[in-house]
This record gives sequence, C-alpha cells and structure tokens, in this order.
Amino acid sequence: MSEATRALTFVFMDLEATGLPNVDPEIAELSLFAVHRSSLENLERNAAGTPVLPRVLDKLTLCMSPERPFTAKASEITGLSSEGLAQCRKAGFDDAVVKTLQAFLSRQEGPLCLVAHNGFDYDFPLLCTELQRLGAQLPPDTICLDTLPALRGLDRTHSHGTRAQGRKSYSLGSLFHRYFHAEPSAAHSAEGDVHTLLMVFMHRAAELLAWADQQALSWVNIEPMYTPEAPSPKA
Amino acid sequence: MSEATRALTFVFMDLEATGLPNVDPEIAELSLFAVHRSSLENLERNAAGTPVLPRVLDKLTLCMSPERPFTAKASEITGLSSEGLAQCRKAGFDDAVVKTLQAFLSRQEGPLCLVAHNGFDYDFPLLCTELQRLGAQLPPDTICLDTLPALRGLDRTHSHGTRAQGRKSYSLGSLFHRYFHAEPSAAHSAEGDVHTLLMVFMHRAAELLAWADQQALSWVNIEPMYTPEAPSPKA
Repeated sequence: MSEATRALTFVFMDLEATGLPNVDPEIAELSLFAVHRSSLENLERNAAGTPVLPRVLDKLTLCMSPERPFTAKASEITGLSSEGLAQCRKAGFDDAVVKTLQAFLSRQEGPLCLVAHNGFDYDFPLLCTELQRLGAQLPPDTICLDTLPALRGLDRTHSHGTRAQGRKSYSLGSLFHRYFHAEPSAAHSAEGDVHTLLMVFMHRAAELLAWADQQALSWVNIEPMYTPEAPSPKA
Repeated sequence: MSEATRALTFVFMDLEATGLPNVDPEIAELSLFAVHRSSLENLERNAAGTPVLPRVLDKLTLCMSPERPFTAKASEITGLSSEGLAQCRKAGFDDAVVKTLQAFLSRQEGPLCLVAHNGFDYDFPLLCTELQRLGAQLPPDTICLDTLPALRGLDRTHSHGTRAQGRKSYSLGSLFHRYFHAEPSAAHSAEGDVHTLLMVFMHRAAELLAWADQQALSWVNIEPMYTPEAPSPKA
C-alpha cells in the first residue's frame, strides 16, 4: 500500500512491556533513536566497512510503572519489574511521557517514519493504545515501517522464493548475527534493541529506505492493540 | 556550603559546545542520564565486582545547531560541525529543547541533583546561559554537584594532602582509567561522556552521595557563563 510519503527522519523504536498481546500489556520502557534521512543515505563506516552510528543522533529512553503486573516471562527477559520501577518512583505512561515524546519528535524534521521490528504486530498497536488512552496524537503525516516483513519481503525478491530463505529466522538477534557475525548487546532493554535495530537497518539502508518510500503505512492506519481503559483517578 | 537538600534523582549530564568559555560558546549536544538515588545506593555489580549501569535509567540526548561557528578544536574533538548539524536539519537550542528537557525532568522524582564533571566552570553556567536566553527555569529545589572538585576534595581528605595526590589528573578520562584500567568509550560525544561520568560516580557512589547531601550547590546560585543575546528573529 503506497502512501507516497517520503520520510525525512527515521525514528527507530522499541518498547518493553508487561507481556505479550494476549495479556493486554502496558509499556514499561520506551526507547527512540531519531536519525535524519541524510545520515542513512550517507553512512559512515569503520575500517572493516561496518556502518557506525550516525554522529548526529537524538535519543530518548523512558521507564515507566505499569498498573498491571508483569508476566514472569516478561520480567525475566526485560530485567524490569513492578518492584524495581516503584523503587525508582517511576510514574506510569502519563501526560509527562506524552509531552516528552511530542517535544522530542518536534525536534526532528518531518515527515517522520517510525521503525520497529515486528512493529505492526506489537510496538505500533501498543503505542497506539497508550496514546489513545491519553487522547494524544502523533504528527498526522507520520508513517511507519516494520523491518520484519520488510526484510522478509526484500529477501524473497532477491532469492526468488527459494526454500532456504523461508527457513531463516528473522528475529532481530538472528538478523544481527547474520549481518555482523556477533551477538547483539543488551537484548531486551529497549535501548539495546533499538541499537540492534538501527545496526540491522544500516546494513541494508538503501533497500529499506526505498521500501519505506514505497510501502510504509500511515500511522493513522494503525489500530490499537486493545481498547484502553479510562485512566485511573489520581491518588 | 550546605544546602541541606537531599536529592532523590541524580541527573548526570554533559554538554558539547562550539568552544571554551572564552568564545561565549553555544550548546550543540546535550545528554542526560537520570538515575534514582535508590539505584545508586544499591548498585548492581558484575562478576568482577564492577558496578553496572542501573537497569532503570532514563536518557535524553539532543543535538542542536548553534548560531555561531565551532572553533576548529571543538569541532575536531566533538565530531560535530555546523554543516553536519545543518545536514540533519537540527534547530537550535529552542523552546522545543526546553519543553523536552522540562518534561523529561518532570518524570524524575525530585529534588534533582544535576551532576557534571567540571560542571561549575563549564556545563552548569553554559546551560544557565541557554535557559536564561529563553526565560526557562529548572525546578527551584534543584541542586548541582561538580564531580571534579568533589573527587579532588574526597582524595585530599583520604591522602591528608600528600604531594602524590596533588599531581594526579582529575580529567574524566584519567579518573575512568584509574578506576577501571580501561579507556572510556566515545569520549567527547555528550552521551559517551555521561556514560563515563556515571561509571566514575558509581565507583565512589557512597562518598559522592554523602558529598552531594552536604556540599551540593543550589542551582539558583549558578551564574550564567555570559549574558545571552536576545533570540534572533524567526526566519
């Protein structure tokens, strides 16, 4: 579905939350790296030819206390817990998060393209739920790109649908390992995963930028993961 | 000078700017790591006993285009340039920076203690100048700690003023090297330096927390580095 929006800033994002979609999860950590298109079109590389993070990079990472409990699995893989977040006196996903997010995004040249791995099935609908609960909006020309189907689609085109391609894992860790022959750092911290995502993106930047121009979805088409409850009254 | 404020969140910060105080510099990059006091009082350590970054850590890094040029030296050591920032279409230190900063800080339990290395002579007065130019405030109970005189003062107490102590370098890189027997990563990116600062702080957390409780200055006592010009009219 072409939206014909050419994004000028790519906002790589990852959410850590209290669980998978079946538990109506709440966000516990949000991380965004905003990179201008020009940096992705003109990547710097180290001596080995590996792309390095753009020097001009804006970053926002926020932790927040969900109202509902973490599943044991979510707490185990993220290292986050209700107790740990309460100990640090973190508030929930509240108006201050929205204000920070909106002000941070307002510093980036639009149109924006949000980029997440498995974003269509997880990060985008979950963020949509949390924003909807607070009546908050993103800039209306925002588009979004899910690198999971994008990289699958690109590989399918290259491999003419051979069987080997179909068996490869497209988890973020597997992609990173395939591209860089190394383990990603800090998996399942939101920021660690955004770093890995950006590295994976940069490895195939030209193709993914073209994909985004042609196939990214408008943010307004994203449906919330679930209908949010009304905010609980302030204490 | 005791202010009798016991900070509950420590906001580690570093600024990269267009030059040293003698050129009336402007901020080009700002990075903040907000860590709750409880995390600093109960540090996690790796197998070697080295403190690891707290899991619950909020982070903000913003790049901005100064109006005045970089000195050649500042551009060389920071890797930032007016051209590079313009290429990424970064606005200056504007109201959106203030909004992002204030909303980010509003997520942290106060009172806040800003922490910077050489902060009294550089980061704090420069931030004060930029905020004053926009008529912006920090929370009035904010205090600030400069780890450079604090660590010198702590060492002086321990060493009873021996001559060896007086000769040691207290640059951030030297401190990191002395404490961790390794080179700091990403020196002179704002975020790299905040990471190094936080590691250095954690190495002596108990002493520095006590120092902050007794000797941190109130932010309201910070004088601007220079009197800001009125903002230039919008294009």
